[in-house]
Amino acid sequence: MLKPHEKSWGDTAATMAEIGRRARAAARPLAVATAERKHAALIGMAQAILRHERDILDANAIDIRNGEKSGLSASFMDRLKLDPARIRTIADGIREIAELRDPVGDVIAEWDRPNGLHIERVRTPLGVVGVIYESRPNVTADAGALCLKAGNPVILRGGSDSLNSSAAIHACLVEGLKTANLPEDAIQLVPTTDRAAVGEMLKGLSGNIDVIIPRGGKNLVERVQNEARVPVFAHLEGICHLYIDRSADLDMAVRIAVNAKMRRTGVCGAAETLLVDLAVAATHLVPILEALRAAGCEIHADVEVLKAFADAKPASDADWVTEYLDAIIAVKLVDGVAGAIEHIENFSSHHTEAIVAEDADTVERFFNEIDSAILLHNASTQFADGGEFGMGAEIGIATGKMHARGPVGVEQLTSFKYRVRGTGQVRP
Amino acid sequence: MLKPHEKSWGDTAATMAEIGRRARAAARPLAVATAERKHAALIGMAQAILRHERDILDANAIDIRNGEKSGLSASFMDRLKLDPARIRTIADGIREIAELRDPVGDVIAEWDRPNGLHIERVRTPLGVVGVIYESRPNVTADAGALCLKAGNPVILRGGSDSLNSSAAIHACLVEGLKTANLPEDAIQLVPTTDRAAVGEMLKGLSGNIDVIIPRGGKNLVERVQNEARVPVFAHLEGICHLYIDRSADLDMAVRIAVNAKMRRTGVCGAAETLLVDLAVAATHLVPILEALRAAGCEIHADVEVLKAFADAKPASDADWVTEYLDAIIAVKLVDGVAGAIEHIENFSSHHTEAIVAEDADTVERFFNEIDSAILLHNASTQFADGGEFGMGAEIGIATGKMHARGPVGVEQLTSFKYRVRGTGQVRP
Repeated sequence: MLKPHEKSWGDTAATMAEIGRRARAAARPLAVATAERKHAALIGMAQAILRHERDILDANAIDIRNGEKSGLSASFMDRLKLDPARIRTIADGIREIAELRDPVGDVIAEWDRPNGLHIERVRTPLGVVGVIYESRPNVTADAGALCLKAGNPVILRGGSDSLNSSAAIHACLVEGLKTANLPEDAIQLVPTTDRAAVGEMLKGLSGNIDVIIPRGGKNLVERVQNEARVPVFAHLEGICHLYIDRSADLDMAVRIAVNAKMRRTGVCGAAETLLVDLAVAATHLVPILEALRAAGCEIHADVEVLKAFADAKPASDADWVTEYLDAIIAVKLVDGVAGAIEHIENFSSHHTEAIVAEDADTVERFFNEIDSAILLHNASTQFADGGEFGMGAEIGIATGKMHARGPVGVEQLTSFKYRVRGTGQVRP
Repeated sequence: MLKPHEKSWGDTAATMAEIGRRARAAARPLAVATAERKHAALIGMAQAILRHERDILDANAIDIRNGEKSGLSASFMDRLKLDPARIRTIADGIREIAELRDPVGDVIAEWDRPNGLHIERVRTPLGVVGVIYESRPNVTADAGALCLKAGNPVILRGGSDSLNSSAAIHACLVEGLKTANLPEDAIQLVPTTDRAAVGEMLKGLSGNIDVIIPRGGKNLVERVQNEARVPVFAHLEGICHLYIDRSADLDMAVRIAVNAKMRRTGVCGAAETLLVDLAVAATHLVPILEALRAAGCEIHADVEVLKAFADAKPASDADWVTEYLDAIIAVKLVDGVAGAIEHIENFSSHHTEAIVAEDADTVERFFNEIDSAILLHNASTQFADGGEFGMGAEIGIATGKMHARGPVGVEQLTSFKYRVRGTGQVRP
């Protein structure tokens, strides 16, 4: 038996294999658990989080002290740090997931056949999920709760710098599982800082992990995408584009540009490149750039843009493929929607792109010809978020095209099976 | 430029890489091709197949002569052999695919948000498909046409023994693409018998193959599943179960058992194991087994079954995990639906299982607790087929839970994206 707090343990490969077997063994009881049972477990988890506030803060204090000793960055320490308000937010987040519609058993589609067979496509859990994340302890709760809601066992591998905090939160999740008499192995936390554990997960634990979801910076996601032998739901980066068409309303264009870039610069749905139609360079370009600069944004301008707006940095080739995650935007003039589509198809990370335009045909062309997970018309790219889509909690945004794409919420963590009802039919 | 008939060529890895790049380059023009354009290409393909009947038969004659020299088996030669009727069937199959509803652009779901945003989830092509198949030349046409309908470029790697036949059919597909002015690289045939080409495809051609679909025997599928570095839609085998519950109507049970096993024994949806409820061993077991034997089926019986039906072979442990694909069935008595579920969860390949029962609660339990792609009530397992499901043509049946499950038809070969329509919304 492994306990999350045991730091010394034996062979990592053998231990991870055991974790994989346990997760798989939990899959069937979880798949047949009723919606009420899972709801009760989730409410039990939220209550345990609040009840053990002190324990979680104490564990977090250890991580904070270790982090200070290791000289972790201020932003890193901010993500790591818990306080009573953040703990309440974690508990509230679990309650929200508890109140989402249970997807398992939902009939997604149904139809009748001429021979009288009635066919239903019904949601089922997807399988064992592996979540690999950096040092944000709240991911422990979010990912554990969301996977449980979808009926999936989950193996959580948090960052080593938050292991004590994550273990304290994980203990509360297990308490919730126990209150509903669901298998404790439904939510397991990898109890080690050994990096080899991640490698084992990426190999899939002998078929005992069905999908891996990385949560963290580009280095983590890149390693997972390159090394994983199982499917991955992720986005490497969000190089999101905002295109201002010749038919755009200028006031709206200004408002959306400032929001898309500056509302929060560190989120994956923040705009990184602004494309402006050459045809409105004379009228729209300068007011938009002035508004961005007034909001504190640095402008990296293409040579044609510089002619109209000299007080900017010249953009280099690298700017078109850079996810700044900062108050910087690359700006380019393009020849109408065709030019915008061309630029986006060449440089986008296929996460989210937006167009501001009044001409319906132009919008349809933008929507049809660009193959990104999310396309928006006359709205900010910052709406690229599961909550904003009405999905409730999300575990991330995927840019792959296999199974999940866009926000990964509870429905995206399910699969399906067919139920066929007959009255004695045999096949001729 | 490579031509399918060129047998001598250079470096396989370099050539396959070039095929991958061409397929990727064809993806965008194909994704934006109208439904009408794809329809025209498909009709053009069917017409070319009929027009070039003589060329196809001549090419097939070469494969047949080579096959005779190599001493290929009679069943293998039967799958390889083409005649005018089979060529017409191939052309008709392409026409059927042409008449399917075009999935690209279909709105799968749509909803409004309180802030006025209107969100649509819209079908898109999935990406480049790699199809690896054995020596059935008709797969060239089926797979090529189905992938085109879904807007996906496809790389076809047929069996070496049918390369001439496949190349002749492929030339007709390219003719169809040309008549609609769609990129010729939308459907490429790997023009070599070098087995290293398969290895290159399994590695994904540097990200230029998005999914691989193997069509063929267990050895092929096993290799693909083990070695592929990209997602695979496949089933390794169909160890399909038929369970006769205590509440079953005996006549129906007999009829379904004979059909499920004996209609065609070589298909993946054929029943391989018969489970009979202990509670009706005295009434149902013997009539069902007698009917099966009368239909020419060999019985491999569990020790308890042998007591009631002595004239059968004793089943060994291997029988419960054997896909006979022949007129043989393994038979076992189980303790009600719970016993059936237990056996199926232990031994099934999660392809297709059926229950014959009149009791609704029993059926619901069977449907809820078994996690196979297809579950049927009071109907034959042989309905496990895309055509029988009303999907039109299928490219196979998948037992994985990622993206596609059950029959893989044109919809399963698509992905989706989100289109969000606003009126100037910015995120607070």
